[in-house]
Amino acid sequence: MPQTNRQVRLAARPSGLPRLADWQFTNEAVPAAGPGEFVAEITHLSIDPAMRGWMNAGVSYIPPVDIGAVMRAGGIGRVTASEHPGFAVGDYVYGTFGVQEYAVSDGRGVLKLDLSLAEPTAYLGVLGMTGLTAYFGLLDTGRLKEGDTVVVSGAAGAVGSVAGQIAKIKGGQVIGIAGGQEKCRLVTEEFGFDAAIDYRLPHLRRTLRELAPGGVDVYFDNVGGEILDDVLTCLARKARIVICGAISQYNETQVRGPANYMMLLVARASMTGFLVFDYADRYPEAMAELAGWYRAGQLVSRETLVTGSVEDFPETLLKLFEGANTGKLILAI
Amino acid sequence: MPQTNRQVRLAARPSGLPRLADWQFTNEAVPAAGPGEFVAEITHLSIDPAMRGWMNAGVSYIPPVDIGAVMRAGGIGRVTASEHPGFAVGDYVYGTFGVQEYAVSDGRGVLKLDLSLAEPTAYLGVLGMTGLTAYFGLLDTGRLKEGDTVVVSGAAGAVGSVAGQIAKIKGGQVIGIAGGQEKCRLVTEEFGFDAAIDYRLPHLRRTLRELAPGGVDVYFDNVGGEILDDVLTCLARKARIVICGAISQYNETQVRGPANYMMLLVARASMTGFLVFDYADRYPEAMAELAGWYRAGQLVSRETLVTGSVEDFPETLLKLFEGANTGKLILAI
Repeated sequence: MPQTNRQVRLAARPSGLPRLADWQFTNEAVPAAGPGEFVAEITHLSIDPAMRGWMNAGVSYIPPVDIGAVMRAGGIGRVTASEHPGFAVGDYVYGTFGVQEYAVSDGRGVLKLDLSLAEPTAYLGVLGMTGLTAYFGLLDTGRLKEGDTVVVSGAAGAVGSVAGQIAKIKGGQVIGIAGGQEKCRLVTEEFGFDAAIDYRLPHLRRTLRELAPGGVDVYFDNVGGEILDDVLTCLARKARIVICGAISQYNETQVRGPANYMMLLVARASMTGFLVFDYADRYPEAMAELAGWYRAGQLVSRETLVTGSVEDFPETLLKLFEGANTGKLILAI
Repeated sequence: MPQTNRQVRLAARPSGLPRLADWQFTNEAVPAAGPGEFVAEITHLSIDPAMRGWMNAGVSYIPPVDIGAVMRAGGIGRVTASEHPGFAVGDYVYGTFGVQEYAVSDGRGVLKLDLSLAEPTAYLGVLGMTGLTAYFGLLDTGRLKEGDTVVVSGAAGAVGSVAGQIAKIKGGQVIGIAGGQEKCRLVTEEFGFDAAIDYRLPHLRRTLRELAPGGVDVYFDNVGGEILDDVLTCLARKARIVICGAISQYNETQVRGPANYMMLLVARASMTGFLVFDYADRYPEAMAELAGWYRAGQLVSRETLVTGSVEDFPETLLKLFEGANTGKLILAI
């Protein structure tokens, strides 16, 4: 067993895309488990767009990562030592363990994984926060009804690909928006959306209007920016826009607000933000439904796995903003 | 009785503020009432921010006013001739009669006024579309609850002044935003808001945070622009933003979208557009409640009356965008 725990800490608050100088690499002794604690060796780190927001100062839905602190990250780990009655050595667990090789935990907010159901990485994707985010955003905030026309941006990404699949399962007509022909192929062929639009091609608005002549009932937005403005012009009466993310804006020093927001009035539509954490008491029911679809082959889990060390985290994070991943981006340690 | 009906028609679609050249003044013969019709002499024209939108080409909630057509306007008239069993000479009526001295109507969408209850102009204000807009926007779209902290922009204006008064009646803590000290005085002293903020002074955001330390539960927005962005940073959890109008943007060729819209996610909040016309089947219940408050002195009707001819319409419309009016702006013919 190694004697050091390599860690990645936030060194400075980035302006624009995070640079290497915004990070600090440290080594500490591998922590020991005190009474009621366990130690996990991190095997997989979840790489999420939200991480960029956690690096900023200011008011948000959780406190920013402090300068000098280990970067916040969800991850999968294997228990290597335990003084906790609920966790045994060898258990696989999910938790917010941070960008480091070992984490000590008292078990709060930690989920034990059922590996008879799925491989560990699925618990970062369709069976994890990613799947839950898509589930509650679409069904609760988006109030999806059978027959709705649904548009999902970031459709080849982690949350988007699951949101579109759930919309199909629930009887929606689903159009994905993604960057590039290869991603669009994936969106229709692998994730089973009815159609995909490559936003890099011109005339997104016109294409969307052709594909959704009756207007868009639910727009699940992961990207913000120009695409949000385009979809705003194609809303059906009483449309629901679900604000899940705005990856196009996270590295902008000047955020682009949706100039077409008055279309909300024209369409009597709503734009609503949500956070998956608010649904913690309903995770079990959602997990059960997601797992059922997954076992039945109705829900495909797709991951982009980068293999390396925690020190590859800064570079791996940038892949998200380059749109280099399809499905869930994971750093396998 | 005069032989001519003076009219104001849309001559061109304006860019920015409407200019005199965007209008055309015509004279026609006073219309006659055919079977099932009546003729009304217009006594009061409703001057509304929404008129600016009706002058633009493109998709909206109603078709644009055609070039060459009499400008659309709500108004009060006195019936001067009738072949309609439901309307008698001398009746006062409200309808979308247009910017002209006489209108012929088959009675559809026309309301007969009860002058025992209120003077005619009140039917353009608290007892008319203005009051109904405030009522449904606040109570239905805004889902106002007793104890909510409510912010209303355009608080000294027609809809805003009524929205704030209704919020007080329903048990809200109400903060108005208006331009200038005189309007702010009116907002608190005449309309009974708990507080008013002069948006022309610096530090709107800070002042709002001091007045609403627990955050804003309902924001009734009439103005858009920078003020919307400021209020977005002060939302309470599960806040509802009601998009009623965006008068600050109506004459902009480049609309400013709310750059802080991701605060909807942080606050798990919603931003929803509505149109009063959708509530037509509930107008009677709302009118009854508004009339009750009005009779009881709980609801103050305030009007800015400009006296002139229909040809003063273009100039009167501009007063709205100068913020020259308090309460309902009316052109009395």
